[in-house]
Amino acid sequence: MSELRRGPIAEKWVIIAPVRGKRPFDYDKERRESPISDPSTCPFCTGKEDLTPREIHRVDGPDGRWLIRVVTNKFPALQSYDDRGRQAVEGFFDRMNGVGAHEVIIESPNHNSRIPDLSVEHVRLILDTYVDRLRALMENPWHRYVLLFKNHGPEAGASLSHPHSQMIATPITPREVRDGLETARNYFERKERCIFCDILSGETRAGVRVVEQSNGYVVLAPYAARFPFELIVYPCEHSHDFTTISGEQRDGLAVTLKRTLGRLGALLGDIPYNFVLQTAPNPIPRVGKPGYWKTLQYDYHWRIEIIPRLTKVAGFEWGTGLYINPVPPEEAARRLREAEIKG
Amino acid sequence: MSELRRGPIAEKWVIIAPVRGKRPFDYDKERRESPISDPSTCPFCTGKEDLTPREIHRVDGPDGRWLIRVVTNKFPALQSYDDRGRQAVEGFFDRMNGVGAHEVIIESPNHNSRIPDLSVEHVRLILDTYVDRLRALMENPWHRYVLLFKNHGPEAGASLSHPHSQMIATPITPREVRDGLETARNYFERKERCIFCDILSGETRAGVRVVEQSNGYVVLAPYAARFPFELIVYPCEHSHDFTTISGEQRDGLAVTLKRTLGRLGALLGDIPYNFVLQTAPNPIPRVGKPGYWKTLQYDYHWRIEIIPRLTKVAGFEWGTGLYINPVPPEEAARRLREAEIKG
Repeated sequence: MSELRRGPIAEKWVIIAPVRGKRPFDYDKERRESPISDPSTCPFCTGKEDLTPREIHRVDGPDGRWLIRVVTNKFPALQSYDDRGRQAVEGFFDRMNGVGAHEVIIESPNHNSRIPDLSVEHVRLILDTYVDRLRALMENPWHRYVLLFKNHGPEAGASLSHPHSQMIATPITPREVRDGLETARNYFERKERCIFCDILSGETRAGVRVVEQSNGYVVLAPYAARFPFELIVYPCEHSHDFTTISGEQRDGLAVTLKRTLGRLGALLGDIPYNFVLQTAPNPIPRVGKPGYWKTLQYDYHWRIEIIPRLTKVAGFEWGTGLYINPVPPEEAARRLREAEIKG
Repeated sequence: MSELRRGPIAEKWVIIAPVRGKRPFDYDKERRESPISDPSTCPFCTGKEDLTPREIHRVDGPDGRWLIRVVTNKFPALQSYDDRGRQAVEGFFDRMNGVGAHEVIIESPNHNSRIPDLSVEHVRLILDTYVDRLRALMENPWHRYVLLFKNHGPEAGASLSHPHSQMIATPITPREVRDGLETARNYFERKERCIFCDILSGETRAGVRVVEQSNGYVVLAPYAARFPFELIVYPCEHSHDFTTISGEQRDGLAVTLKRTLGRLGALLGDIPYNFVLQTAPNPIPRVGKPGYWKTLQYDYHWRIEIIPRLTKVAGFEWGTGLYINPVPPEEAARRLREAEIKG
């Protein structure tokens, strides 16, 4: 069983998740040196369905073959348990059981179909799957927060090259998410406006960091971008909760996500990247604090952050939390606006 | 000129440092794919002194040849300016000029001498150089914080394989450092004891996460370690300021640092790692707030954090700030205690 731990200085939770049956450095060396990229041994390809853990969800095409599968992660960081087992350890330290869930969304049966190569209709089915699984995971009251993310390329942490994304449900709301929620609430209390909506309105007026505005979305290079070509996809219409997205908004997002990843590919080639969905925590009330998270989250604004992994995180970043970015976001936005997109 | 930027959500500063004369993706691709490891083209080797920028400091051996050189970084993230130019941009954003300094400490004339291979006397000279340069950089009142760090191996962000470390002086105290200072002060106000001293005393009593205790230092695998084999080297005697370290304490640290990096090498081979020195910010009083930082920092405790880079930081970590560590620190400490060290 994995566990969550927190020390008194950093006050951030860490997941200690030993890998069963492997010595830790074997595991690391393997992940570091050889992500599985050969289709003949890929457990996510058609015909290898018995190589994955339990199938949780599946989308079939008109011919009855699967288009998208959701399975449990083979090495889950967190798993279902009855008890969080929250406790103090040796006076200074907090721990709890590794309660949660860890799922993998296999985005296509085709080993090499990246999101820009898929049809808009297929990307829309992936988004439907995201919504379905987020809603399902949030039915469990232990799941305080669910992060949807994608690792593409070995430098971005992908151990398999077959296109997939992941969801991890955590038994706590991460501190950085909570900080963002509180910033948004404080701003709303002063201004009676959403801070993200105000940033969007200023940024679309200024224009210099806007990559694209269409289909109900704005794609921005953020003013204080930590990474070269870092982007955020914002819905123009205020909404704190991605799972309430309408059919029309899903269609718009499918087009925008495909086009934006296509722009990055057209300009930079097949680069490693991560994307993460930032959305409000689970609205299911906490025992003892029934209204707190519910009221906190309405001032939030969901968004997808895309993080190309072209620079290395090194000692300076670990020591200070400051990032060094060699590409001004205005230049990144200009180059991406000019990039030619296929399809 | 580089600049510092900060947005209203993350509230963390970012350094935007365009590289002159290169298109940004050239620069990234180059750094990503080919760190300079060939001694014949290495600008840090003996005889190539004219390939480095201005020499700032130098330690010579008895034969008159240099043992350690300090030079300006060829691609400085921050540089000396007269004015911080602190201002608001478009209402939401903070910016200031990239005021500061960025130096490289070339630790040895020998291309392949890693710290465990050097004599204790030579490591002591490196520590002396650290102290001298930290003191010199803190004479400039714009330098609010100075981070000493080392990147070893391309996965840890090193673009040259010749052994070196770096210092960056920043015009702000990074938020994560400030949070640590405030945690330590709040604890001291309640308990009248240093929080780090209390952790050390608990950890040395428990023993399970202690790698070594000798020469005035404790080497610990922290309870909530973010990375496999992450370690912290603490001085047993309370001190907030590394630059006040005595000669005897420097000798002890030289032995401990050499032995600890030697243990990691004996167990895991020549792995990529970062180390960072965490010490109090510049004690020079700020205009308008003369006493604030000075009183804040006495409750701090300097330490060296060693971060092996065996796992990848991926979407989950970027989205939540939570880390997944496959190696329990108790197991890391046990294996490192048992590791055979040469020399």
